[in-house]
Amino acid sequence: MPTVGIQTIDEDRLDEDKTLMTKTTHHSAGEECGICFARPDFPLVPPLNFAMVATGVYRSGHPNKQNFSFLRKLGLKTIMYFAMEDYPPEMKHFVEHEAIEVMHFRMEGNKEPFVEVNKDDISLALVKLLDERSHPVLIHCLKGKHRIGCLVGCLRKIQRWSMTCIFDEYRKFAGTKVLADQEFIETFDHESVPYDPLHQPVWL
Amino acid sequence: MPTVGIQTIDEDRLDEDKTLMTKTTHHSAGEECGICFARPDFPLVPPLNFAMVATGVYRSGHPNKQNFSFLRKLGLKTIMYFAMEDYPPEMKHFVEHEAIEVMHFRMEGNKEPFVEVNKDDISLALVKLLDERSHPVLIHCLKGKHRIGCLVGCLRKIQRWSMTCIFDEYRKFAGTKVLADQEFIETFDHESVPYDPLHQPVWL
Repeated sequence: MPTVGIQTIDEDRLDEDKTLMTKTTHHSAGEECGICFARPDFPLVPPLNFAMVATGVYRSGHPNKQNFSFLRKLGLKTIMYFAMEDYPPEMKHFVEHEAIEVMHFRMEGNKEPFVEVNKDDISLALVKLLDERSHPVLIHCLKGKHRIGCLVGCLRKIQRWSMTCIFDEYRKFAGTKVLADQEFIETFDHESVPYDPLHQPVWL
Repeated sequence: MPTVGIQTIDEDRLDEDKTLMTKTTHHSAGEECGICFARPDFPLVPPLNFAMVATGVYRSGHPNKQNFSFLRKLGLKTIMYFAMEDYPPEMKHFVEHEAIEVMHFRMEGNKEPFVEVNKDDISLALVKLLDERSHPVLIHCLKGKHRIGCLVGCLRKIQRWSMTCIFDEYRKFAGTKVLADQEFIETFDHESVPYDPLHQPVWL
């Protein structure tokens, strides 16, 4: 029976700590659950700004109760969550029930002119994202626009996409307001991301 | 050695003609080719409005020469093309060279108030799209906005997505201008699409 956990990735844990994968709480999967119970007569509601990034990788805003039956169909193994806020109780319950490992990156979005997305967090997240052993994975922040837009933009650089196409994709979700995100993507040193070529996804 | 072909799906061929799969032209795959030659020092350029729809299904506008090295990485088996226009010579050459089967649906987009997307074309296309034997598949029209937006919207209905999320996705690519597309999606009878449950993708 798999166990699950929510782990917080703080800056002081960025020293390539191998215990990042440690699962800190657990709960048996497979029980009936009032919260996660799917209603076959209802439409499936994807989370805000949901989309597929690549095989095994999905992006969105913060899921809520309405999205649980949709999420369950994805068969997620991992969630990577980028925001300062803790999960609300029903989201905690859902991930425990579904035996999904959660990596919580306590990270602020770009707020011009002073607050910047943390490059080390993005680099660490990309290493995890490019390890197919964590797929299928959902990456989400609050609205699925800015922090996730930065992360996906940096992933696209590793995939060698042209900047025109990277920005076009970014703007489909986030609009044109936050130039700092596009600057972050443009200046991010994607060649120094230490992902493991042994476990990289086939689409890389 | 696989052979390839470009087949045109006209309305008079909609009588469940099993020869739709027949490959009509061929060309050896694997030869060196001036047109398709990838340049490792260049960025990869996805086609206009490129995105992943589901595992094994991609959407975009009409690819051009710049996009060939990107497309090659997708390992496409099938392309479904929705427009009145024939492929230009370099696109014909590319699909032949890569042994990609092309289904050409000669279809007009919604043009208010008189021209409507053909429901039978969409239904036939969905049957093909929901057969995992044709994956990986790229669906494209000219700009990747309206015809493909209709098709994806109808696919989402089969996937039981809420209309709110279907329209939100549609508008990310197409904007809000063509209401007729959203009406088409809303009124499309998705339950009558005769896809084959034996070969449906796992994500359905």
